[in-house]
Amino acid sequence: MSVISLSKRVSNLHSSPIREVLAVANKPGMISFAGGLPSADSFPRMDILQMPRQMLQYGPSEGEPELRDLIATELQNIELDVKPENIIVLSGSQQGIDLVAKLFIDHGTRVALQSPSYLAALQAFRFYGMHAVALDPDAPEQALSGDGNHPALAYINPTFQNPTGHCWSTQQRLQFASLADKTGVAVFEDDPYRDLVYEQIDRTPVCAKLKKTSWIYQSSFSKNLAPGLRLGFLAASDDLVPYLLRLKQAADLHSSRVSQWLVLQELNKVSRAEQLHTLAAQYLLKRDHFQALLLEHFSDLAVWQVPTGGLFFWLKLNTTINTSELLASAISQNVAFMPGEPFFLDPQSGYSAIRLNFSHASADEATKGLSVLSALIRNNT
Amino acid sequence: MSVISLSKRVSNLHSSPIREVLAVANKPGMISFAGGLPSADSFPRMDILQMPRQMLQYGPSEGEPELRDLIATELQNIELDVKPENIIVLSGSQQGIDLVAKLFIDHGTRVALQSPSYLAALQAFRFYGMHAVALDPDAPEQALSGDGNHPALAYINPTFQNPTGHCWSTQQRLQFASLADKTGVAVFEDDPYRDLVYEQIDRTPVCAKLKKTSWIYQSSFSKNLAPGLRLGFLAASDDLVPYLLRLKQAADLHSSRVSQWLVLQELNKVSRAEQLHTLAAQYLLKRDHFQALLLEHFSDLAVWQVPTGGLFFWLKLNTTINTSELLASAISQNVAFMPGEPFFLDPQSGYSAIRLNFSHASADEATKGLSVLSALIRNNT
Repeated sequence: MSVISLSKRVSNLHSSPIREVLAVANKPGMISFAGGLPSADSFPRMDILQMPRQMLQYGPSEGEPELRDLIATELQNIELDVKPENIIVLSGSQQGIDLVAKLFIDHGTRVALQSPSYLAALQAFRFYGMHAVALDPDAPEQALSGDGNHPALAYINPTFQNPTGHCWSTQQRLQFASLADKTGVAVFEDDPYRDLVYEQIDRTPVCAKLKKTSWIYQSSFSKNLAPGLRLGFLAASDDLVPYLLRLKQAADLHSSRVSQWLVLQELNKVSRAEQLHTLAAQYLLKRDHFQALLLEHFSDLAVWQVPTGGLFFWLKLNTTINTSELLASAISQNVAFMPGEPFFLDPQSGYSAIRLNFSHASADEATKGLSVLSALIRNNT
Repeated sequence: MSVISLSKRVSNLHSSPIREVLAVANKPGMISFAGGLPSADSFPRMDILQMPRQMLQYGPSEGEPELRDLIATELQNIELDVKPENIIVLSGSQQGIDLVAKLFIDHGTRVALQSPSYLAALQAFRFYGMHAVALDPDAPEQALSGDGNHPALAYINPTFQNPTGHCWSTQQRLQFASLADKTGVAVFEDDPYRDLVYEQIDRTPVCAKLKKTSWIYQSSFSKNLAPGLRLGFLAASDDLVPYLLRLKQAADLHSSRVSQWLVLQELNKVSRAEQLHTLAAQYLLKRDHFQALLLEHFSDLAVWQVPTGGLFFWLKLNTTINTSELLASAISQNVAFMPGEPFFLDPQSGYSAIRLNFSHASADEATKGLSVLSALIRNNT
């Protein structure tokens, strides 16, 4: 092969820990705590027998009108002041991350975000050249203010954050929103886990509290319906919608209309609210079983909080170990998990942690897998 | 709203003629020659009754293994030397354009491409900052050589080019491939129309003729199956696959598995070859009817070549008129077409032309629409 001349941004294009771990995690016999995989039991039975044939033609870039109407209504119900025109259907919320990064981030653009944060967002932002600024939800002014050098964008995942599972308090939400309005930092709120809620807790979108600054709120049908459909959506302030729509069109013209039609049927079912309730109840049982196993196996090895929503336990290990190396050992014993390092802005300055998904493995698998994993860590320290 | 701080590349993000024309073209009562819309009669009846429920889970970024195997075999049959590992399933071939642009194009990167070229490719490349270099397939050395200042990439659509319908000769294919190998320019071949062929003609991919340089070949299931599924694929040389796979994952994790499963069922049907044959035969009839109408209405207004494949007639008008303004008049009379200007590297230096799709309108609609359109042009000149 000749010497190829690639774009400069490719130097920031690193192999993805998600894809690599998931590739291994899907192997037969592997007990996986790695991905954010919903339980396959939860997937509805669907068919396309009633789908109009016209859905096989090209469709609008912004998404199917009925689906946008319905999403707008759902968002109004959680206090977001949006019209259907503010909604763009996405090919999964990963696409929203890419579109927003394209819209805001040049080489050196300051982006405020928590450490740890969702690693695929970190990767996408770094690819476009982000200069990361660490955001502490207890003291957001440190990241958002800065003497005339505000970040252009703040990326937040305040409800059942990936990876920590933390849910911002009402006070944290209000304080952050007020400061974003004051400084004019645009807010990008990622909210894929909000329906997976196990306790009464404030989940009002931070974007619903904004009065002035530009914002994007996004969510996904991957966690509350089925990831294989690859469908999510964003809502954005009026000023950003025209840009995001052009970017969406340039990215893939529009999202699969078959997927959109299937999601619309599910959302329109009278039993939808009940289904979500059942889903959360099932995950609550899994969470509690997992918590019991963690208490049994990890009490001397790590500290953690029981997540009030979402799909993950985040374990801070009591001793410093390289969890990427731990993963290799675990995989050789057919257990996969997500190492903590890639979630940190600066892996060197982070603590040792592992992210454990509790929704995918069966109860028996969880019992076995956590036993294996804890033994490995115990032998390692 | 506050003053938002967007990325520099957004200054190259213009409203899309495609989306705007298509939005109008889909209105009831509109006769549309605008989009590259396949005939809705050609869409197969499909169902997902046999789809394994597991397809609703997350899947591999590179696409379903069975689908990649099948695509690799089809490409081997048209002389492309690929393995399944060289294949990445795309959410439509528009996504391939975005991924390849991300991979190669910084502000100022030289890209060789014909003028006119597919306008959505032009837009995507410009968004990332392309410096366009005009490519003439009769004299490719002008664009590809350049004193030590080779383009990084050449974008070509040699088989039934959009918008001209032109199909490169065997000699043009060989000459271009040889020169690309010699200069080390990477080749990006876009080939969505190859199955819509109406005469015996060489359609061997240019990439099949390459011996050294890096390459990407892509095609789509939008034209030969159904665009609403939003599915396409790329094949790439070994050196580029790891980059493109990471970019694919960062863009949307993977493509809709329901769409992938549906496409796989259709490709596996024993009747698939026959279906393609029937599809091309139907379009041939439409092409010939359209040609008869053009001879009747446009002989004094324009010159054109009868396309040997694809979905478009490209009419060079005998007089210079602003075809974007013509479009506004036509739309007021319920006829839509695609103005020529946005297809040119420099619209000022191009000739006056219009692109007419012949596959979507019914015979009656085509008769009426071409009568209206020719009268408008005649009155305009």
